[in-house]
Amino acid sequence: MATLTLASWATNLTYANLTTSVVDAAVKSIYNWAGCAIGGYAQDAPHIALATTQPFFGGPATSSILGSNTTIEGSFADAQLAALINGIASHIDDYDDTHLETIIHPAGPVASALLAVAEWQAEAAPVTGSDFLTAFVAGVEAECKLGLSVYPEHYAVGWHITSTTGSIGAAVAVGKLIGLTTTEMQHAIGVAATQVVGMQEFFGSMTKSFHVGRAAQGGMLGALLAKNGYTSSLQGLEAKYGWLHVVSTRENATAYFSQLGEVWEIEKNTFKPFPCGIVMHPAIDGAIQLHNETVEQGISLLSVRSINLQVNSEVLVLTGKTAPTTGLEGKFSIYHAVAVGFLAGEATPTEFTDAAVNNATVVSLRQKVKVTTDDANFSTDQATVTVEFEDGSTLEKHIEHAIGSLENPLSEDQLKTKFLDQASKQIGQVRAQKAYVAFKDIGSMTDVGQLRTLY
Amino acid sequence: MATLTLASWATNLTYANLTTSVVDAAVKSIYNWAGCAIGGYAQDAPHIALATTQPFFGGPATSSILGSNTTIEGSFADAQLAALINGIASHIDDYDDTHLETIIHPAGPVASALLAVAEWQAEAAPVTGSDFLTAFVAGVEAECKLGLSVYPEHYAVGWHITSTTGSIGAAVAVGKLIGLTTTEMQHAIGVAATQVVGMQEFFGSMTKSFHVGRAAQGGMLGALLAKNGYTSSLQGLEAKYGWLHVVSTRENATAYFSQLGEVWEIEKNTFKPFPCGIVMHPAIDGAIQLHNETVEQGISLLSVRSINLQVNSEVLVLTGKTAPTTGLEGKFSIYHAVAVGFLAGEATPTEFTDAAVNNATVVSLRQKVKVTTDDANFSTDQATVTVEFEDGSTLEKHIEHAIGSLENPLSEDQLKTKFLDQASKQIGQVRAQKAYVAFKDIGSMTDVGQLRTLY
Repeated sequence: MATLTLASWATNLTYANLTTSVVDAAVKSIYNWAGCAIGGYAQDAPHIALATTQPFFGGPATSSILGSNTTIEGSFADAQLAALINGIASHIDDYDDTHLETIIHPAGPVASALLAVAEWQAEAAPVTGSDFLTAFVAGVEAECKLGLSVYPEHYAVGWHITSTTGSIGAAVAVGKLIGLTTTEMQHAIGVAATQVVGMQEFFGSMTKSFHVGRAAQGGMLGALLAKNGYTSSLQGLEAKYGWLHVVSTRENATAYFSQLGEVWEIEKNTFKPFPCGIVMHPAIDGAIQLHNETVEQGISLLSVRSINLQVNSEVLVLTGKTAPTTGLEGKFSIYHAVAVGFLAGEATPTEFTDAAVNNATVVSLRQKVKVTTDDANFSTDQATVTVEFEDGSTLEKHIEHAIGSLENPLSEDQLKTKFLDQASKQIGQVRAQKAYVAFKDIGSMTDVGQLRTLY
Repeated sequence: MATLTLASWATNLTYANLTTSVVDAAVKSIYNWAGCAIGGYAQDAPHIALATTQPFFGGPATSSILGSNTTIEGSFADAQLAALINGIASHIDDYDDTHLETIIHPAGPVASALLAVAEWQAEAAPVTGSDFLTAFVAGVEAECKLGLSVYPEHYAVGWHITSTTGSIGAAVAVGKLIGLTTTEMQHAIGVAATQVVGMQEFFGSMTKSFHVGRAAQGGMLGALLAKNGYTSSLQGLEAKYGWLHVVSTRENATAYFSQLGEVWEIEKNTFKPFPCGIVMHPAIDGAIQLHNETVEQGISLLSVRSINLQVNSEVLVLTGKTAPTTGLEGKFSIYHAVAVGFLAGEATPTEFTDAAVNNATVVSLRQKVKVTTDDANFSTDQATVTVEFEDGSTLEKHIEHAIGSLENPLSEDQLKTKFLDQASKQIGQVRAQKAYVAFKDIGSMTDVGQLRTLY
């Protein structure tokens, strides 16, 4: 029943079903995603992917590549290519969003597919902001409920849960937007479900963000194929050899799907303050606070004997790289992240470049970082950071809830600052400001296809 | 080491390494694939996929859609689209080829990607037939050795092993063709490995053949991204959270990869005499032989009380659909297949159309088919078929090795007949004959890019 339950719920969802709080969470999720997609376009990965696939994806250029800083005309591609590139760019900095219960980064696969299709469809039938938000929420609820249904077993197998659930989320969102019937939606979910993209081995390489772009493409393809009568299965999720059982050793979809529209996962979406693996955030938060105290007390930042961390064991499982050599690897090195956070007093994309990772002072300090795991006393959003200086004195900071967590979220001002910081570097301050306003006001648009002309 | 071993072997492989028997097996595999791709293009699935993706895959039309019966000019698409459509068309009839030890259908993902790239690259640097065959063999060995490394556990999880290994096979083949270095090949394998397409739930629907086309696209993309410097992992197969461990509960890659170039999997490729699930072949073989005996003895084919089968239990697991309603479902119904085989005395694509599946006489007879499973006495290529007539008399046939198996392979004449039967229906007898000659002689071509002009 899971496939039918999800398909039926999504096809029947209306904007009127969304509470103010759900709409607010959706809008934040979308503009945070857009800021990441614009800022992340500065990286190599989206450019290599674009150059590689341009010989193929050469359909009418209907959909925007968000971070392009060429002319307006030069910043469009066909919907499949735009979804791939925006998906990669929005995730390449590991700076996007997080549904903490599943560690899914929900917006990337869904919004990358959805905006591309909305712009493509605009000529035939403009998509309103409220329809866009409704479809976005449908997609996010689909991927997060699926994630909850198989977490943590699915993740423990080694899957990258953002993209494995993301292709289905993208199919549901696009399917909602193009008005699939419930049966068509079931087929769309099937085509999306059978494309399982993403394993954790590829964390720290360009392929991690490829997962997000490819999931966006695959899900979109599922919805469009179903619209044209391509058949899959009406039980693609729950069948013995369907998604839930093939990709996980346990599933509980019936329970979670029964809460669709009652418990909203979008409301639990959080936004990353630091562009790196989410489980490092409490330790980075502590390291930055200790940087400030060290400076205030007039102690040299270079007089450190050791930095000791107490954290949950997932931190080493996911971010245990001891000797990263690239910025992308640095995003999965607790040693680098804490060292650079303490030295710089911040952790922005600048602290996760190849240069930052290979900086001699940073390398020297990261070798002094020691990690103790203690699952009894530390959840993944907690950490204690202790700096011991050469004179034997120490400073210590316990983080109960990392900045950016549900209990300690980024404020709207902080989200704005994050957007402008990222986007300005790629498209300049003036356009970044316009883009922020455009995406923040997306809900009131009468034609989302016009969005790209606003900045 | 698995990723490095495979990458290194493939990049070092030369045509001189291939024995005559390997080349012969490769050529048969390729022309059998081409016949399937031409004949299968008559089905709905490739046409829906083409219509759906044409707005996106609109790059220069360099690569042929094999079964197109429009003008030569109208039968080309960009390489990604051609790979998708030929992959779907070659598998939609379930009539292609089988590496029986793994139930992989090897040619589809590999050849669909490879021919598309060879034609695309032809303008810059023509690909010779021997280079094409070398790359094809590299890809087939890659997918079959991987399949052996995880079979049967991987299959038992519910994966469609043809496409899950096929994306990696396609990456290795294309990577070989475009001259990747060993390190680039490792990255290509990684990008391909992280795209795991295909679950068994979708058997009997159009999505089964989508798996093959999508695997061809994904593998090709992996090779091309790696060529352009996109990074993945050098241990994408063997890492804790890499392909071998994520998609299977057991793996033995080290042992199988050590036999690369010594035991050739391509030599074990077999060709389907019937367009349906391979495990039904022995029972169909028996049913057709009993048809002939029944006719010879002057007994009415309609005077059957029951047909009893003794088979391996996998037959019901994979092909146990009792009430198929479409031709595609009929390909996975032992009840339909035996009934139609007995009534018609053959099992060609005509016996697996929607009309055949819904024919009242066939439906009536399929309800009289009873299946007994006996794993102690029946392997998947064995069956005993017993027909009981209304007068109480019986005819029985035991199949020790089904036609089309390694022990009882299709002859070269039978392969030719199969090719011409399939292809003629779609492109006419004259062109089918030319296409047969063209693909059979592919090894001697100086420019595989010219292949499509020969028929």
